[in-house]
Amino acid sequence: MKRNVIVGQSGGPTAAINSSLAGVYRTAIDRGAKKVYGMIHGVQGLLNEHYLDLSKYIQSDLDVELLKRTPAAFLGSCRYKLPEIHENKEVYEKLFAILDKLDIEAFIYIGGNDSMDTIKKLSDYAILTGHNTRFIGCPKTIDNDLALTDHTPGYGSAAKYIGTSMKEIIRDSFCLEYPKGLVTIVEIMGRNAGWLTGAAALSKAEDCDGPDLIYLPEVTFNLDDFKDKVKKLLEKKSSVVVAVSEGIRSADGKYVCEHGSNVDFVDAFGHKQLSGTASFLANYIAGELGAKTRAIELSTLQRAGSHLASRVDILEAYQVGGAAVKAADEGDSGQMVVLQRISDDPYQCQTAVKNVHKIANDEKCVPKNWICKNGTYVSDDFVNYVTPLIQGDLSPVMVDGIPRHLCIPKELYKK
Amino acid sequence: MKRNVIVGQSGGPTAAINSSLAGVYRTAIDRGAKKVYGMIHGVQGLLNEHYLDLSKYIQSDLDVELLKRTPAAFLGSCRYKLPEIHENKEVYEKLFAILDKLDIEAFIYIGGNDSMDTIKKLSDYAILTGHNTRFIGCPKTIDNDLALTDHTPGYGSAAKYIGTSMKEIIRDSFCLEYPKGLVTIVEIMGRNAGWLTGAAALSKAEDCDGPDLIYLPEVTFNLDDFKDKVKKLLEKKSSVVVAVSEGIRSADGKYVCEHGSNVDFVDAFGHKQLSGTASFLANYIAGELGAKTRAIELSTLQRAGSHLASRVDILEAYQVGGAAVKAADEGDSGQMVVLQRISDDPYQCQTAVKNVHKIANDEKCVPKNWICKNGTYVSDDFVNYVTPLIQGDLSPVMVDGIPRHLCIPKELYKK
Repeated sequence: MKRNVIVGQSGGPTAAINSSLAGVYRTAIDRGAKKVYGMIHGVQGLLNEHYLDLSKYIQSDLDVELLKRTPAAFLGSCRYKLPEIHENKEVYEKLFAILDKLDIEAFIYIGGNDSMDTIKKLSDYAILTGHNTRFIGCPKTIDNDLALTDHTPGYGSAAKYIGTSMKEIIRDSFCLEYPKGLVTIVEIMGRNAGWLTGAAALSKAEDCDGPDLIYLPEVTFNLDDFKDKVKKLLEKKSSVVVAVSEGIRSADGKYVCEHGSNVDFVDAFGHKQLSGTASFLANYIAGELGAKTRAIELSTLQRAGSHLASRVDILEAYQVGGAAVKAADEGDSGQMVVLQRISDDPYQCQTAVKNVHKIANDEKCVPKNWICKNGTYVSDDFVNYVTPLIQGDLSPVMVDGIPRHLCIPKELYKK
Repeated sequence: MKRNVIVGQSGGPTAAINSSLAGVYRTAIDRGAKKVYGMIHGVQGLLNEHYLDLSKYIQSDLDVELLKRTPAAFLGSCRYKLPEIHENKEVYEKLFAILDKLDIEAFIYIGGNDSMDTIKKLSDYAILTGHNTRFIGCPKTIDNDLALTDHTPGYGSAAKYIGTSMKEIIRDSFCLEYPKGLVTIVEIMGRNAGWLTGAAALSKAEDCDGPDLIYLPEVTFNLDDFKDKVKKLLEKKSSVVVAVSEGIRSADGKYVCEHGSNVDFVDAFGHKQLSGTASFLANYIAGELGAKTRAIELSTLQRAGSHLASRVDILEAYQVGGAAVKAADEGDSGQMVVLQRISDDPYQCQTAVKNVHKIANDEKCVPKNWICKNGTYVSDDFVNYVTPLIQGDLSPVMVDGIPRHLCIPKELYKK
C-alpha cells in the first residue's frame, strides 16, 4: 500500500468486531500503509470529520491482544443509512472530500447487512465519479444472517455464550420443585433469523438434555399450540425450559411481544426494537397453567460476553480483517470478505471476496430443512454446522479478577 | 467417623454449593465414614426418604473436579421451613427415625439463613431428646448476608460474574449514540442486602469508569431524586449505566417494582418474589427524559455462571464443606462453619465454627459506612473487602466448546 487506510465499525457491537479491527490495523501496517485512521462512530462520525490515528492507541503487541479480547466497538458504532446517490449527492461529495484530504487508498467497513449497504453505495459512487479509493466490507454480526458467507465473525462467540448460559440455566432450573412445575423462558436475539436461538441446542450433551423447545423466528408461532406443548411436558417433568427468539411472530404477522403492553421503538432502518417476548410468554403460561414461571433475557450480555469468546471466532475475525486490507491492496472494491468452509471435521475455512451488491440488505435465514418438522427444534445438521465455530477459548487478560480491555478515552467518542 | 454422614443442599442454588458438597464428601470418606448419603431436595426430600448413596455418583478424582465446576444444586434443593418443635413433633419424630435407620452420625446442611434455621431446630430437638446425631451448617448464599462469617461461599463467584458482566455492558453502551442519550439499568439480585449490587463497582478500573450510580436496598430509593441524577449525568455523557438491587424500596416501604404492574408471588418463607425493577425504571426514565433506555436483569445467570467462577470462592466452598465434617467428627453440633479473614493483602482466611442460634434468620447488610454519603455508590472499603474474593479462575472442563458438568440422572430428582 502506498497511501492511507481508514476503518470503521457499524451496527450492533459484538465480541469479535474489535478482533477484525486489529486484523485490519496490523495488515495495513504490514503492507506499508502510512497511516491507519479509525472513524469514530462509523460513517456518521466521518461526515463530521470525527476520526483518529489508530497507531496512537494500538502501540504494542499486548495492545493488539487486548483489543482482540475487548467486546463492543472500540471506535464506536452507528446505525447511519446513506441516502441513495441520486437523492443527495452532497453527502457523497462531502465524504469523498474528506477521503481525499486524508489521502485514503482503502476504506474498510466492519458491519452487517446495513453496513454492506454503505460499502455498496460508496463503491458505486467511486465508479460513477472515477474516484480511486477502494471500498471493502468486513462481515460482522452475531445474527449470522449475511448472504454468501458460511458464517459471520461474532456469531461463534455469541453461540458459545448462549449454549453455555443455557446449560447453566437448565442446571439451575432443576434445583427447586414447584407444585405445578417451573417453566423457564429464555429470550435470545435475532429478529428474523434463528441462528442465535438455535444455538441454545448446543447445551445438549451427555450431561444435559438441552432446552425442551426452541422457537425460531422462521416459524410462525402459535400461542395455543405452545401452551399445549408446555402442558404436556409438565406432565412428564418438573422443569421445562424454552428458548425463544425475540422475533417470533403469530400468524397475523404481529411480534409475540406486541401482544403484551410493551412500547415499541423503531430505529433509523425501520426495524422495530423488540423486548419482552419471554416475559409475555412467562406471564401467559403462569396464568393459563398455574406453573411457576421465569423469564430470562440474555440481552446485551450475549453480544458483549468477551470473557467467553470462541477462539475460532476471534481468530477468524482477525483473519477477515486482514483479508479485507489485502483485497483492497490488490485492487478490489465493492466487495465483502466471506468465509468459505472447506470441511466440518477437521474444521477448515478460508477467506474469499464476493460482490457486495449480492449481500447488502439481504438476510440469510436458517434453512427450512435444519428446523425440525414440528417447528420446535433444530436438526443435527444445524448443530454440526455451529459446533466448529464455538471451539477453543481466548483467555481474558485478568487484572484484579476482572477482564482487562483496550479502549480509547471516552471523551473521544464525543466531537 | 464410625457411622454414616448425610448431606443436603437448601435454598437458592449458586456456583459454589457443589464445591462444598465435594468437600463434605471427600472429608467424610477420608475420616472413615462408612457411607455418605445425599438428601434429594434437602430436608423436604428426606422426609419422604428421598436420598442417594453419593459414592455411586462421585466415583473418581475427575468427578470431584467436575462437581466443583458444576453450578446449581447437584442434589436438588428446597425452600422447606421446619415447623417449631412444640407445634409439630411428628415431623421431627419421622425425620429422626429416618436418621436412625440410616445410622447417621453427622447431618450437614449447606444453605443460607433459612437453612440455618433447620440446623438450629434439628440440633435443639437432638438436645431435647438426647439424640446423638450431630448437626452442622455449611454457609452458602450468593447474597452474602449471613451473620458472624466474613463472607459466604457463592458470593465471590457471583460478584466476579457481576463485575465482569457490568464491565462488558458498560463497554457495549458506549458504541451507539442516541439523540437524548442512552440509559442502561442493570438489575441485580439481593432482596435486603446490597452485597451483590455493590459488586457492580468491581468493573471500575483504569479501563472502565464503572457504573454511574449504584442503588443498594439498604438505602431508601427516591424516584424524583433518581431522575434528577440521571438527567444531570446525561448532560455530561451520552451513556449512563445504573446498577440497582431488585429490592430497592421507596420511603413508604413499597418495592420499586411494585410501582409497576407486576404480579407478586410470595414464597413459603413469606418473601415476595421480585422482578421488573429495571424495566420499571427504564420505562420511567424513557417517559420522563426521552432517553433511549435498556433494562438488563442479570437474573439466574449471576448465580449459575460457573464458567466464570472465582477460584478463591470455589476452593473456600470446598474447604468449608470439609470443616463442617471435621467439626461434627470432633463432637460439635448446632454450629455453622464460618470464614474468618486474617488479612486483606495478602488475603488470608481460616475456618471456625459459631453457634447457629446466633446466625439463623438474621441478615447481615452492607455497613452504613461502606455506602457513600449520597447513597448512590459503595466506598473503597467495600471494594477492598470484595476484591480478594473474586481472584483466580477455575477453568471449566470444556467438551465440544461447552463446559461439562457432573450431574445425577434427572429422574432421580423425582420420587
